Parts: sequence; C-alpha cells; structure tokens
Amino acid sequence: MAFELRCEQEITDWYAECDVAVVGFGGAGACAALEAAYAGAKVAIFEAASAPGGSTALSSAELYLGGGTTIQRACGYDDHPDDVYGYLMDANGPQADAEKVRAYADDGAEHLDWLMAQGVPFKASEYPHRAMLAMTDDCLLYTGSEKAWPYSDRYKHAPRGHNLHIEGDNGGPLLMDILSKKVQALGVDVHCEARALHLIVDHFGPAQRVIGIVIREDMVERAWRVRRGVVLCAGGFVMNNAMVQRWAPELLRATVPIGNANDTGGGIQLGLSAGAAAINMHEGFVSLPFYPPASLTFGILVNGQGQRFINEDAYHGRVGSYILRQQGPVYFILNVEDYGDYERVSYLGAPVAGTGETLAELAAELTLPPGQLESTIARYNDDMSEGADALFHKAGEWLKPLNGPLVAIDCTPGNGAYFPYFTLGGLDTTVDGQVRTPGQTVIPGLYAAGRTACGIPRRGDGYASGTSIGDATYSGRRAGRHAAQLRFSNAESSS
Amino acid sequence: MAFELRCEQEITDWYAECDVAVVGFGGAGACAALEAAYAGAKVAIFEAASAPGGSTALSSAELYLGGGTTIQRACGYDDHPDDVYGYLMDANGPQADAEKVRAYADDGAEHLDWLMAQGVPFKASEYPHRAMLAMTDDCLLYTGSEKAWPYSDRYKHAPRGHNLHIEGDNGGPLLMDILSKKVQALGVDVHCEARALHLIVDHFGPAQRVIGIVIREDMVERAWRVRRGVVLCAGGFVMNNAMVQRWAPELLRATVPIGNANDTGGGIQLGLSAGAAAINMHEGFVSLPFYPPASLTFGILVNGQGQRFINEDAYHGRVGSYILRQQGPVYFILNVEDYGDYERVSYLGAPVAGTGETLAELAAELTLPPGQLESTIARYNDDMSEGADALFHKAGEWLKPLNGPLVAIDCTPGNGAYFPYFTLGGLDTTVDGQVRTPGQTVIPGLYAAGRTACGIPRRGDGYASGTSIGDATYSGRRAGRHAAQLRFSNAESSS
Repeated sequence: MAFELRCEQEITDWYAECDVAVVGFGGAGACAALEAAYAGAKVAIFEAASAPGGSTALSSAELYLGGGTTIQRACGYDDHPDDVYGYLMDANGPQADAEKVRAYADDGAEHLDWLMAQGVPFKASEYPHRAMLAMTDDCLLYTGSEKAWPYSDRYKHAPRGHNLHIEGDNGGPLLMDILSKKVQALGVDVHCEARALHLIVDHFGPAQRVIGIVIREDMVERAWRVRRGVVLCAGGFVMNNAMVQRWAPELLRATVPIGNANDTGGGIQLGLSAGAAAINMHEGFVSLPFYPPASLTFGILVNGQGQRFINEDAYHGRVGSYILRQQGPVYFILNVEDYGDYERVSYLGAPVAGTGETLAELAAELTLPPGQLESTIARYNDDMSEGADALFHKAGEWLKPLNGPLVAIDCTPGNGAYFPYFTLGGLDTTVDGQVRTPGQTVIPGLYAAGRTACGIPRRGDGYASGTSIGDATYSGRRAGRHAAQLRFSNAESSS
Repeated sequence: MAFELRCEQEITDWYAECDVAVVGFGGAGACAALEAAYAGAKVAIFEAASAPGGSTALSSAELYLGGGTTIQRACGYDDHPDDVYGYLMDANGPQADAEKVRAYADDGAEHLDWLMAQGVPFKASEYPHRAMLAMTDDCLLYTGSEKAWPYSDRYKHAPRGHNLHIEGDNGGPLLMDILSKKVQALGVDVHCEARALHLIVDHFGPAQRVIGIVIREDMVERAWRVRRGVVLCAGGFVMNNAMVQRWAPELLRATVPIGNANDTGGGIQLGLSAGAAAINMHEGFVSLPFYPPASLTFGILVNGQGQRFINEDAYHGRVGSYILRQQGPVYFILNVEDYGDYERVSYLGAPVAGTGETLAELAAELTLPPGQLESTIARYNDDMSEGADALFHKAGEWLKPLNGPLVAIDCTPGNGAYFPYFTLGGLDTTVDGQVRTPGQTVIPGLYAAGRTACGIPRRGDGYASGTSIGDATYSGRRAGRHAAQLRFSNAESSS
C-alpha cells in the first residue's frame, strides 16, 4: 500500500542513519537542510527527481518579504512588520494562522539577510511597474493587492516582492542553484532519484514517534534511521488529479496546474499515514495573468450579467479567484488604445470576443443582457468625471473613460484564457514546522514545510506573489532548525 | 487524551458485547439501529443526551425524496430518479458524490415507503406555497431551487420536500418519537447519558480493525466488544467553535449555529483517531430565511455596489450563501405592499434600513454608491415590461415592478438578520457508510452516517431543505444494514 506507515520492529535491515532526513529538494527542503546542517545535525536529503530544484526552480522565485528589509530600506521604503502582519492576516481571511503570520512578518528582514548570506543576490533597486515580476534585474515591486481596495486604506503599503538580481524570469533556477550548491558544500548527504515511500514509527498507536523513513533508490527500498526528525518538503498535490478532485474540486475550473511533476501530494500522504491533519485542503491559487501589459488595468471586467465584480487593479490572483465565482461569460472590456501590445507581451492567451467602433457595436457581439453593458460603462464613465470609481474603488491612476473604439477579451474559464492554479492546503503544522494531529497534538519527529504544509498563503483571493517561495524558504528554515534541535535539549527530544 | 484510539490488548475488562454499536440516537442512529436489528444483529445504541432525538428532533424533519414517491404519485407528480440525480449532482457542484447521489435518487421512493412502514405518517397532499416548511399537516412542497434559475431549465422538477402529517413545525419530535419507540420495540439495547470516548481496534497500525468502543455511563468507562461494526451517527461539529474555526472559519460570518448541543464533532474525531479522512470540511449550510412571507420574493437583493447578485426566487440557503460572498451591506428592497406581514410571520429578524415614498428618498437612507440603486431598479422595472428578468432569470411569477413606496430590509451579516448555519463536512464514507482512510481504504468495522459523514448535501449554495434528514435516515439505514452484514457472509467479515 502506497505510503503505508511502517513500524520499527518490522525493519530488519537498516541501511543508514542520520539526524535529520529531508524529503524533497526544492526551496523548502534546501533551507531545511541548510539550517539543520548549520545546527550541527547530520543531514540527508532525498529528492524524487534526478536533480534538485522542485517547483521553486520552475518559479520566478519572487520572495514576499517586508517589515524593513535591507532592499526596502535601500530603496527608501519604511515598511513595518505590523503592516505586513495586518495585510497578510486580512488577505488570508478567516483561515490565516496568526502565529505563523506574526513570525513571518517579524522575521522578513532577517530572512532576506539570511538568503543574501547564502549568496543569493538582490540588487538595491525598484521595478516601479504593475507586473507579475521584474523582467529586468531589479529587485523590489508590488506583488499583491496592497495598493488596491479594500486593503489600500487599511495598512501602510510598500513593495514587498523581492526578485533576484538576474535578467528575465530566471530567479528560480538561480536561487536553487545557489542553495543546492550550499547544501552540498555543507556536507549534506544528497540523494536524487530517491523517493520516500513510508515513514517509520517507533510503535503503532497513540504517541507514536517518527524514527525513520523508507527510501527507494537504485531500485531497492532502504530503511533510514532518523535520530531527530523527518522534514517533509515534497510540495503540494496539484499534479495529482485524483487528490485535487477529492479535496479541491473547484480548482478544476482553472486550466493549467502549476508545479513540478512530483507535486503529487506524496508528502501530505506520508503525513496523513502517521496521523497528521491536513487543513485548508479546498483552497488554491488561481490567476488570470492579465498584466503585462499593465494597460489592461484601464479596462473593466464584466460578468454574464454585464456587471463589474472587482476593482481591476487588484492582484491577478485575486482577479482569477473572483472570476471563478462568476456564472456565465467574463469579458475584459478595453479601449483599443489600451489593448496595446497585449498580443506581443501577454501570457493570457485569451481570444478577442468582440470589437466595435462604438459601444453598441461591441455589445452586439457579446452574450450579455441587452443594454446592461451600456449601463455599466455609462456608470463607469460618469464616475471618471468625478475622479473616483464609486462601485469598486479602483485607484485613480487606473481610471480612464471607456469611449471606444472598444475591444472585449474573452476571459470566461474554458474559452482559452490561461488560468494557472496550484493548491494551498497541506499538513497542519506549528510555526516551527512540527506536524499536528486532528486533535492538535504534535507528532514527535515529524515536520513539514513549503506546500506540504499549510503555511502563510491560504486563500486564492488574498494571494500575493512571493508568499509561496517566501513561506517555503522561511518555513523550511524553521523546520530544519527545530528538527536539528537547536533550541531543545537532547534529553527532551529523545523518546 | 480525548478520543484517543485504544487497542484490544489494553482492555482488561470487557463490560459487554454486541454485534453493532451505534453512537448517537438521532435520525441517522435510529435508522442504523433499526436496519441492523431487522438484519438480526444484536444492537446497542449510545446517546450522550438524556433522551433520543439528536438534531433530527430539533428539526422540521422534512425529507427530500423523489423519483416517484407514494406521495408524489398521489399528488399527481411524475418525478423520475434521473431528474433527482441531475439536480442534486448539479446543485452540489464538483463536490457531489455520484455514487451516493445515484443511490439516493434511485431509492427515494423506497425510503419513504420504509419510513411509512415504521409508522411515520405522511398525508397525500401538497402545500403549494413558497415556504420553508408546511405549517399545515400537508406533505409535499418545493424545498430547493428546482424551479429557480439556473436549474429550472436543466431538469424536470417536482416538489420533493416531504413533511410529516402533523400541524405546525412539529415533524422532528414526531419522527424521532416514532423511530425511537420502534428501536425500543425491536429490543435494541438503548443507553442514554452514555458518551462514546474511544474506539478500540484489534491492533494499532495498518489494516487495524475496529472491534469495540469505550463508553462512559454511570460515571464509569466501559469497554464494549463489537463483533460487526461501530456506526458513528453523532452529528456534525457546528457546536464546537474550535473545530469550526479550524475547518470552516468562513461559516462564522453567519450568526446562529443550528444543531443540538452535542454536535461537537465527537463522531468525526473518533473516526479521525482511527485513521479516517474527513472531507469537504470547509462547507456549510447558511441561510437567509426570508420567506414566509413569500411576498418578499417580489423584491430584489442588492449588495454594497447597489447591484443585484442572485435571482431572489432561489432557495433561502442558496441566497444565504451568496450573501456571505458579498462585500459591504446587503439590502432587500421591496414595495411596501409586499412587506406585508413580514413583521408578524418572518423568522428573519432583520431591521428596516430605510423607507421612502420615492426611490430617491429610500436611496438617500442607504449606504450605496450614488445613483446605483436607481439604475439597478430602472433596469429591473424595464425588464418587467418585457416580462423577463434578463439579468438573473427570476421566474415570471415573482416579477413585479418596484415603483414604491419602498422599504429596505438590512440583510447585512452582523446587522441583526438571522443567519443560521451548520456544517456539511464529515468522514469520508462509501455509499454503505464504510469509513475510508485518506488513501481510500475502508477501515474494517467502522461506519458513519448522517452529518458525522460527508453525504448528499455538500454545498451551501446548492442545499435543499430535507436533504439533511433525508440523507441522515437513508445513510443510517445503509450503514446499519451493512454493519449487520445483511449482504455479506460471516466468513468474509470476520477478521
């Protein structure tokens, strides 16, 4: 049976021993291994793929960090941890984990410094555009909805997305190259093409302690005895269609699962086999990546009722989540001048649904209740003359009358627009990565980090780019450090 | 540790034995006990409260059943299981369990006959009003959104809510009185003030089998050996605030948890202790119980943007779920003539937010973007002249211009309106109530039914009254029958 729990007394042949075993060599696993090694632990790391990287290497490796990072300060931003905390708590809604968010907000500056100390380069510069990431080698940009309603008036904002010092969308490979070399340099025992199959406990039943792991490598199963802790950093489950169907079926209205091929929920299933709770499993990130070009933000989104439903200056993930809640078609309505270089620079792939020299011409091409688009746009244009979006509070810099010629882009899910998605649920952990049971008891010797755990980002409609890699690297560090017992005596931790 | 799993070898003193142990004596538990007893099993049932009843006795005991029940046929309705299946699958969205819904649709008529055979009375009459239940002794009424968009054109509809033959909101006590007397008459060993504390397994670890249960009764803990199966029918978790916070925090925007005091998730926690999966835990029923008076349905609901967001002839639970997704205030706008006997007959308790001889007067009293309510109502009234609600497709019988004098009722969550809620997540079970692990393996000897399991109703926005009691009684029967092994040989089932 896949991932079935094993018991110490069943193991007749132990292959090797270590203090800390890390499962998965992406961003979380690398940082867990590093901190465990710095703490003096003998560390082994196991990666199912043939090389390190995980989903972090496939990502842009933006890091959402604030509270006054080295780079923020160099760029003249005075960001306070309380504003990071306030925004992240609000954006992640009732699911937010206050203890984790507090630590993440307080330690943002320290975490960036730590990454820089590992050799990860950041340039003290800002990319002052509405974009998903900096395609230049600049560092700092807004990657959430901080400047957008309803958050803009609630918390002092600052750009918190930190891009690595490299041109183009190449942060992920660079980050993982640096971290994985550091892991090797520290003498961590690295195993690729090594898949974790089973956790091993000292006994079956209440208060069981994780004391090892079965790894398949070189086509044989090998039992590793783990003296301190197993840290599960094996990603989420977006590539496991059966798991998504079971736990997060609403995500399947989106179109493209984002992750590496091994994001099949194996880490979560290993945790569950040992009695862990998995929480927030229905939630996911869903995006309508409609900028660049930022000029689309001058347009309006309307649903099948011809109504607007969101301020279009919100983060693309928030927009994507709202689109999935609409019934019927969804159109982005633009002045042709703001369509601009959409076809050249956009990731969106959404087809044009209609064009018109006049609003009436455009409306005739769309499937909407007669007259409603006209009414919605009249309201929007009237509000422009007052200088404010009275309905959805789109910021003034994105307000401009829609007076045509007009174009409508079809953003209806399933009609061609690119809706990437990934999962946000995972094992329930403490701020130090200790995995908990449904009764909130810590399972001794078991840790999780990155998307195998349920961490900082917990809602698609509150997501900000950089919270996944930020959380993965930070939570990996916490888990690795705790597993290595930097803060705990051997007496307390031994069973 | 509460609900901690116990192992056979730890038990030194067995208090008693039975074939089937049922935990919880509400609608699900009663039906599980009955079917197990009919199948020849020696049955014991344990109820934490001092008398049978559970949440079923507190409910109206409507039963959502179709496909051509005795009563439907007597009232001239030709309902087909495929239409029940189609509607329930659609309404429960991507979470719907096709196998369960298929069985429930196919067995609707049989299930009603079975209840009648137990002595539960239903009158062959219809209550042809838009209401939450029949306050007369009539039986049949519409209790979902079958006649409302977007379902009305997709499936042939029929009334499927079956009320017991009794005046007023007294179906629950009558149903439980009849079922509990039948349970007693069949010689089931009934224990009230008896709380289930721990499941007992034959061994700890993979393939463990549930073989008993620890019950606290008369202030002592007693181990019961259970030869065939333990059936958990202990309700949901809506009364456990910590569990709701953890698993379904969005429900806490609603105001009043609905259930009995022991709906604290104990059954779910017992299942989890034995390695079960709990699924769909974030979902719940939320209602804005705005009818009667049905005349409010002539009005329109608007959100903080002054926009309509739903067809107001939808089921009150669908309306409640949509309200919880809106930002800012929510108002019900009515002609004063349709306000009617709201204050006398309504359950809603929502305050009046404003009144006006004219629309302009009313609008001035509400917190909405200037002019938007006027525009929304102009559109609505224009559509009336065409005889159709072009935006939300409210059925023609509920269309009437809003031409004032007008009144606005404040339906903003937290402003006084009654928003009842309960949970819809629970243990993952087969159609026969067998509890499954996260890896989809059946846990031998363990069953769940009613709201301890995740059953037919899985979404607040697709809920229909009567699916809880319908599902509880039906799933209880299936679980009790399977646990008693009516369909399985002793050889196969013994460990």
